[in-house]
Amino acid sequence: MGITDNHISGPAARETVEAARHVAVIGAGIIGAGWAAFFALRGLAVRVVDSNPGARDMLDAALARAEQVMKALGQVGERTTVPVLTDDLAWAVSGAAHVQEALPEKLDLKHEVYAGIEAASSPRCVIASSSSGIPPSVLQQGLRHPERLLIAHPCNPPYLMPLVEICGGQHTAPWALDEAEAFYQGLGKQTVRLRREITGHLVNRLQSALWREAVYLVANGYASLEDVDRTVTEGLGARWAVCGPHRIFHLSGGEEGMAGFLEKLGEPVEQWWASLGQPRLDMATRKALIDGMDQAAHGRDSVQLAQDRDDGVIAMLMAKRHGA
Amino acid sequence: MGITDNHISGPAARETVEAARHVAVIGAGIIGAGWAAFFALRGLAVRVVDSNPGARDMLDAALARAEQVMKALGQVGERTTVPVLTDDLAWAVSGAAHVQEALPEKLDLKHEVYAGIEAASSPRCVIASSSSGIPPSVLQQGLRHPERLLIAHPCNPPYLMPLVEICGGQHTAPWALDEAEAFYQGLGKQTVRLRREITGHLVNRLQSALWREAVYLVANGYASLEDVDRTVTEGLGARWAVCGPHRIFHLSGGEEGMAGFLEKLGEPVEQWWASLGQPRLDMATRKALIDGMDQAAHGRDSVQLAQDRDDGVIAMLMAKRHGA
Repeated sequence: MGITDNHISGPAARETVEAARHVAVIGAGIIGAGWAAFFALRGLAVRVVDSNPGARDMLDAALARAEQVMKALGQVGERTTVPVLTDDLAWAVSGAAHVQEALPEKLDLKHEVYAGIEAASSPRCVIASSSSGIPPSVLQQGLRHPERLLIAHPCNPPYLMPLVEICGGQHTAPWALDEAEAFYQGLGKQTVRLRREITGHLVNRLQSALWREAVYLVANGYASLEDVDRTVTEGLGARWAVCGPHRIFHLSGGEEGMAGFLEKLGEPVEQWWASLGQPRLDMATRKALIDGMDQAAHGRDSVQLAQDRDDGVIAMLMAKRHGA
Repeated sequence: MGITDNHISGPAARETVEAARHVAVIGAGIIGAGWAAFFALRGLAVRVVDSNPGARDMLDAALARAEQVMKALGQVGERTTVPVLTDDLAWAVSGAAHVQEALPEKLDLKHEVYAGIEAASSPRCVIASSSSGIPPSVLQQGLRHPERLLIAHPCNPPYLMPLVEICGGQHTAPWALDEAEAFYQGLGKQTVRLRREITGHLVNRLQSALWREAVYLVANGYASLEDVDRTVTEGLGARWAVCGPHRIFHLSGGEEGMAGFLEKLGEPVEQWWASLGQPRLDMATRKALIDGMDQAAHGRDSVQLAQDRDDGVIAMLMAKRHGA
């Protein structure tokens, strides 16, 4: 994806942007297009910067899907906007209330674009990076106003999943964190805040911890991939959708809660931890995963499975809102 | 909990047991009482063996709660029964179609009771142990008919959670595994089958893998316990309720599925795995968990939190059935 400071796609496009302050989304890949669709359907004016020839299609596809999803969730705003696609970074961020960066995970590219953002936007405008892989302290190196930069990492797709992880680097100012949190919450998102930066933030660390054991169980033939996945969907997942991993064990401790649980079951848990697998993604393991997934898919292609996943998640989120 | 081969609670009790073949539940602790309530509300005759003076109360409490839960799930049978509590093991298992053992995790006690079961029941009757901690090959040591013994481990509470893990030991016969699977499925449960036995089966291994990282993040101050739990409930959990950990990454691989995911992201995932925490439940960590849970509970006691959890899980299961 290349970003250049040329001119916008056309004069007609500019007219659809409201005079009010807008959100700038940098990059129209899967995450960027998803963010842009979400913001626009919540009623914010959106300028999306991407000079990639496929960007318009990505954006249109995200908009179409986001509209379905957000209608089902009852989250489409009373008024909506249409994101304006441009390759003029300076115009996109000029006067912006919030910049959401969703570029590929290439540090040089991000730093180059940040310089362009700083040249054209207010230093009080938060730059929120969607990065899941680069620590914010590294991202903010070389910025003139590093205090405005933070991580705001969504679960994918951003128009479906409620969670946004917020994490500052060593130079991020408290006002920027507070403002970002209020911004996402105001749009209906659930924010969690990291107190210190760490590789993978919370979501990807927790997700990869579960998957590591799931890979171990399949690769070593303890159960089929399908049965390991079903252990989550038919057992643990329905509980995790309403009750976090700590609270689950707090409730296993009866009246004494977490203290009672640790007293009674702390030792067995440490033994289980010691026995957890440490698989490598070697050729044999990769084959076991690919073959196991083939069987588990029962002929459904990825498009169908993704649709099933999103419909299922929508049902879970609606049930959480009404029943839980 | 003590089990003795005396006489049953009273002649009136015996009259409520149907002439048809019944299920024997051994032990009326949390899991045993939960199983007994589930079987009775699905319409099976149930004999529960427990000479503990608190057994009647355990059973009544489980029945009351199970009735609420199973009504909400639409799972109460057209006809229901009332479990008969007895301390006569021989009578309880005599003529039983299925024995569900739910004793404390004490191997000597279990072996002693298995001898009593074998003395009074048909060798074709499956003995299903609810054990989460003892491998089936160890449980079946010394049995005259070890081929009938297997693990059928529920998620707690058994009348709410759909999942039952089935695992045979080295002597378990295929017919016993098939029969057990058909038995639970016939009652509306979702079964998964382990191909080889392993400490913690699937549920507790996966659960403790996730919790290990969750503990690490809290103990090292990366985020509050409440925010780590919310990362699961507001992000990962809603997805895991409908889409297992393997399928999630299969869908991240786009059209190439799991193979594409491994090709593109296999290396970063291995790096994340290498960075996962290995906490110990030392005093400082226990204090961080207990304090963090206190804050996260916002004054709600365990009874209220457990009710919230169960109501939430019911809503998830209903939504899964109807929408996912």
